[in-house]
This record gives sequence, structure tokens and C-alpha cells, in this order.
Amino acid sequence: MLDIMCKNAREASFVLGNTDSAKRNEALEAMACALVARCDEIIVANELDIKRARENNMSEAMLDRLTLTSARINAIAASVRKVIALPDPLENSEKFTRPNGLKITKKRVPFGVIAIIYEARPNVTADAAALCVKSGNAVILRGGKEAIDSNLKIAEVLSDALFGIGLPKDCVAVIPDTSRETANRLMKMKGSIDLLIPRGGKSLIRSVVENATVPVIETGAGNCHVFIDESADIEKAIEIIDNAKRQRPSVCNAAESLLVHEKIASKILPLVKARLDNVILRGCEKTAEIIDCERATDEDFFTEYNDYILSVKVVGSVCEAVEHINIHGTGHSEAIITENSENAEYFCSRIDAAAVYVNASTRFTDGEEFGFGAEIGISTQKMHARGPMGLPEMTTYKYVIEGNGQIR
Amino acid sequence: MLDIMCKNAREASFVLGNTDSAKRNEALEAMACALVARCDEIIVANELDIKRARENNMSEAMLDRLTLTSARINAIAASVRKVIALPDPLENSEKFTRPNGLKITKKRVPFGVIAIIYEARPNVTADAAALCVKSGNAVILRGGKEAIDSNLKIAEVLSDALFGIGLPKDCVAVIPDTSRETANRLMKMKGSIDLLIPRGGKSLIRSVVENATVPVIETGAGNCHVFIDESADIEKAIEIIDNAKRQRPSVCNAAESLLVHEKIASKILPLVKARLDNVILRGCEKTAEIIDCERATDEDFFTEYNDYILSVKVVGSVCEAVEHINIHGTGHSEAIITENSENAEYFCSRIDAAAVYVNASTRFTDGEEFGFGAEIGISTQKMHARGPMGLPEMTTYKYVIEGNGQIR
Repeated sequence: MLDIMCKNAREASFVLGNTDSAKRNEALEAMACALVARCDEIIVANELDIKRARENNMSEAMLDRLTLTSARINAIAASVRKVIALPDPLENSEKFTRPNGLKITKKRVPFGVIAIIYEARPNVTADAAALCVKSGNAVILRGGKEAIDSNLKIAEVLSDALFGIGLPKDCVAVIPDTSRETANRLMKMKGSIDLLIPRGGKSLIRSVVENATVPVIETGAGNCHVFIDESADIEKAIEIIDNAKRQRPSVCNAAESLLVHEKIASKILPLVKARLDNVILRGCEKTAEIIDCERATDEDFFTEYNDYILSVKVVGSVCEAVEHINIHGTGHSEAIITENSENAEYFCSRIDAAAVYVNASTRFTDGEEFGFGAEIGISTQKMHARGPMGLPEMTTYKYVIEGNGQIR
Repeated sequence: MLDIMCKNAREASFVLGNTDSAKRNEALEAMACALVARCDEIIVANELDIKRARENNMSEAMLDRLTLTSARINAIAASVRKVIALPDPLENSEKFTRPNGLKITKKRVPFGVIAIIYEARPNVTADAAALCVKSGNAVILRGGKEAIDSNLKIAEVLSDALFGIGLPKDCVAVIPDTSRETANRLMKMKGSIDLLIPRGGKSLIRSVVENATVPVIETGAGNCHVFIDESADIEKAIEIIDNAKRQRPSVCNAAESLLVHEKIASKILPLVKARLDNVILRGCEKTAEIIDCERATDEDFFTEYNDYILSVKVVGSVCEAVEHINIHGTGHSEAIITENSENAEYFCSRIDAAAVYVNASTRFTDGEEFGFGAEIGISTQKMHARGPMGLPEMTTYKYVIEGNGQIR
């Protein structure tokens, strides 16, 4: 089944990849319209998922994420439409002519077939499809089993919409089989899948990174730190750690660990404890001498809680902070709060992460916040894409060389 | 041992990665001078390799590639110096300010630690080191066991030169242990190696791609095709297939397969046979009806001969040519010879390869020929780098965000 899906997606990708910007935007408009027009069908499919989820005693929070309403489907359609306004990532080609007369074009092209593995959020199905269509890529989606009826219906609606304007249905497909074996096979379809993007929790990402032989963009692991330097403006420091930890603890750019310079620790830590009153603090030995807190294990400093928990460590210098972060961090987002420009510069040049902040919250690592528009994920790897990954990163290039008989 | 080498390389990379362009160019000049100044030492080390190779009955052609002479070492030093003149790949940063006042810099930075696995050519040691130093990366080199004495001596000379101008010795290191186990361990040092580039034959590349968990750039596999379309200018066609096949058959951008449109086959094939008189032709059934040749198996059409052998197939259309190439090619370099602009356009848009040529030889896929200067390899993957991979592709980027207390 996967083989046939990949073959069909490849064929579709050749057609989609050779359309112009207007046609791909027409496709997005058709997709958005169809989602709204066939809202009732999607809700009926979603109810099957909800019923199964209730039988399996899914938590209310998870059930809420799974549920589609007419308002939510309208919001999904609106976010598909927002992609129309973004610049066409395929328009960016460079041309140059060599002394021997060869005309070389470095042409932006889609990857071809992108696979996305994600968990129980049916909105990802439409969001990811929209970004793939905009960038000229066919997409094979493998969502969580909890949302399979919703996902299949959404894919059907989107495929029909594409077909309605003369594009291949197979530009968008959801894998009906949600078994782990099929996901593992997908990860190994080198040559058939040009790029695989996992979107989800740590164990999903790890499984993909360890098993995939197809090219992968690692996204989303965020063990993010805020380091409050000796010279920090205390007010800024407290606002920032509060925002980084509590504004939305479940997301990858939320802070998981606080480092405090020893010279300022006795002043800062009690303020942190008072302000973050619903956060469990897990401190190192020195922290525990200053404030009442749980004791952190080494494991804590490697942990992305995604919850109201914060590990805390007192360090002797910006150098020690940098070393700690480069060992324990995941290369996502790291912040220093300081009024000392030398320390800021040292931190920014030595920290090995996608986003390094001076006096701002780690929560800004986000495609919209950076002004890139929608993103497909936040890359924590260094190859190809780093940080918020948008439409340009969903493309590659090829060289087209026109000659008139040149030989070497 | 590898752990310590990686740790030292990481430390060195922080220093090297934070030097300016002038310092890195000074390093290259020092490296070039040292190679010339310590030429005799290198030759003595090389003689140990040569002696061992003779005892192991290495072929004369391989022995020649292994041998270093004073003239060759001078040439290696000259190619290190050539890298000085290339633009600094780290200078290319973009800055923008968000409405909330955040100042975002997309800063070009080195990967950090690059590993290169290669075979029995000691000149690669200095060439690769030069490109890594220029791009601010520390490099761990794992060359073939045949050249180990030469490689260790060259690395020592280069490290001493770096140390002499105040940079860490560990910017350049050769792994003394050339066992396969150590190479396999190197491929799995995720977090310690930021990028692995294999340079060598098919089996080396395959082993790396299948085993590595660190990010890899696949290079060098080239099953390149020339397709002679119905409307081809026959003279151009013959010159190009001759050049693509025979100018240097051992390299990855040489042609391995000829496709001929059926309407022109009876005219073209006898001319090809006459011109490529020292090339073994392995033809499909239709080819064999026109010229006297060996018969090609399906395996032949997947084979990169790197030799005076050419597979030949008669096809019914440009569509059939494209389909055949996309199935059998390695995504390296593919050419169409045609005077029909529609067919040229179809070929260029549908062929899924790093370089697609119209009326020119595949032999031009090369950093120097494209005007990029030295290259570290020719990538056949789509992620990160495609085609000739030079200094810009040896870098990544990070976002540095300066605020004054911004929160979300």
C-alpha cells in the first residue's frame, strides 16, 4: 500500500511541482472552500474519533484537542487561506553565465514528496497539506490513530478540491493504516520519500531520528534555558523567566531550566519563587541553600517538562552557564539576561542553538513571531533548516545548464 | 580515543568559529607555508606508506595516486592558498527588526565539527582541512589505511602551523586508527559530529548512508545519462557523448548511459560506435538491431562503470527517457541533446537531479566549472546542499535576537 501511495504521490508531485504560483494559490483557495462547504461531513467523521476516544477513556484535555467544531473548521480554513498571501518559495532562482557561454540557473524546486508523521491533532492535516501544496510538494500524512477518521475525511475533502481544479488527487494523502510497522516502513522508503518531518513529542522524534533512512528534519525538542547574569536588570529578568516558563508551558520554546549567576542568586531566587508561585522548582545544592525547593537530579537538567516545573542551577560565570547549556540543551532556544554587552556577545557566539536571545523571552522562537508566516516546525538540527522552518525550507534547488554544444 | 578527539575538536571549533576572516586566511597561509617547509618530513612519512603498499602489491595506478613528491606537495600547498582568495562564507548575515523592537540577526555560523571519511589519497587531507578552516569548522579526518603515515604527518604539519599563529592544534586532526569499527563508531557520534562527508567509492558512500546517525551529505555517486533527442544536432551530440564518456571516465560526472530517440537511432548509433572506438557498448535489444554490441542487462542500466563502458538504450520519446533516468539515475548530472525547446523544457523540469544539461556535457558539474572555487564534493541529495558543494554549504546559521525585556 505504501509503495503505491508513494508512486502516486511522486507522479502528483511532478504535476504540482511544475505549476505556477497562481495555480497553487487557486488550489489553496479551493481547499479552504471545500473544508467549509463539507464541514458537516468532517464533523460526522470526527464524531467517530471522539466516540472511540471516549471509549478508550481519553483525558478531557486530549479530547478537546481532538474535537472539531464548525468554528474550528472555519479557523482551519482561514489558516489555509493565510498561506495564499505568503511569498511563493519557488520564485527565487539565480542565473549566471560562465565564460564558456554556459547559462546556469540555480532553480528553486520542491523536494518532491514530503512525509509528515504527527500525533492526535486533526488540524495538522490541513495545515501541513496547505504548506506542502504552496511549496509544490506532494504530501503523505501519517497522523495519530486517535484522529484517523477525521484525517481521512479531511484528506478526501482536500483531494477532491484539488481534483476539482485539475490537479492530481494524490497531491495530498493520509495513510489509512496507523500501525507502528507502517510508520517504520515509511521512515525507510529512501528514494520514495524526499523529506520526512516528524511533529510531536520526544519519543516520536527520537524514534524517527533513530530509524529513518530518508532525510529527516528534527523538530520540536526544546530544553530551553534562561540564564540570569550578574549584571541583569532584575525586573526584566523576572518578567522574562515568568513569561518563558508560564505563558504556555506545554510548547517547545517554553523555558525548562533557570541558571542564575551566584553573585545575584540570593537576590533573584526568592523573587522567582514568589512570582512563579504555581511552578515546582527543582534546584541544585546552592539553590536549595537560598530558597525552599525540591532537589534537582542530573536527569532533571536534561528534562523537557512541558509543565509547571523548572530546574534551577546557580553558576559561577557566563562561561559555566554556556558550558552547562551546550551539554544539556537541545539546540532550540536559549536566553541570557544581562546588561553587560561582553557577556551577551560571549553567550551569543558560544551557545550552539537555533535561537539565542539577549534580554527577551525564549517564547519568540516561532515562524509568526519572526515574521516568516506559517511554519511547519522548529528545526533543532543544523543541516538544511534551523529554527522556525517555513516555506523556503520546504524547497531544494537544482542547476539547469543551457549550452550550445560545450564540452570540457 | 574518538571521544577525546571529538571533545578537543569541539573546543577548537569554538575558538576557530569565532575568528574573523583575516585570521582564518592567516591560518591557511601558515598551513601552506608549513607544507612546503616540511616537505621532506612528509615525503619520509609517505615512503612508509609506499613501502607497505608495494609489499601489499598495490597496483601501479593506485601507487601513483598515493605517492607524494616535492612537486606534488607544492601543488597541495598552492591549492590551500587558492582557498584564501575565496569569499568568507561566514560574512553573509541578514538583519531585521520586528515591530516589537526585537532585533533579529540570521547569522552564518560554522557547523562546528565536520568529519570526513575518504580513501587512499593523501592530498584530500590538506584540501579538506583547508576548506574546513576557511569555513570556521574543526575537522576530524579519517583517511584510508594505505595513506595513514602520510595523513598523520600532514595533519601534524597543519596543526603545528595553526598552533604557531595562536589557534588550537585540534582544529585539524587525523584519526590514527583506520579500522572499520572506528569508522562505524564515528558515524554514530551524534551530538559530537555535526556533519559527516564521505568522499570515495560507492561502497563507502553506501556504508555511511546506511549506518550513520550523524547528519551526512551524500556525495559522488554518478550514474549520469546523455539523451539524444529526435531533433538533436548530430555533430553536437557526438562531441558531447564522446566528451561525457571519454574525457575522464573515472569521475562521477562522466556519462555511464546513452539514451537515443528511436527516430534518430539508426543514424546516431553507428556514429557513436565509430567515434567511441575504445568504449565497450552494452545495448538494449533495439540497439543491438542497429549496431554490433554487447547486450545490456537491467543491472547495466543501474551501473556506474567509471570505465570505458557505456550502456545504450533506444527510447520512444523524451517522456520515456525522463522516466528511465528518474528510475536508474543517482540524481547527479543528466543531459539532453535537442534543438526542440519544448522537449528541453520538459526534460529540465521533470528530471530529478542536481544538474540538468541542455546541449552540454555532464562533465561540467564541478565547483570550479560553476565558478564556485574549490568544492568538498558533489552532493546527490536534496537536503541542505545539492550539486557542487563549496564553502557556503559548509556553514549553517543561527538566529541571534536582541531585546530589551520583550515578552509574549
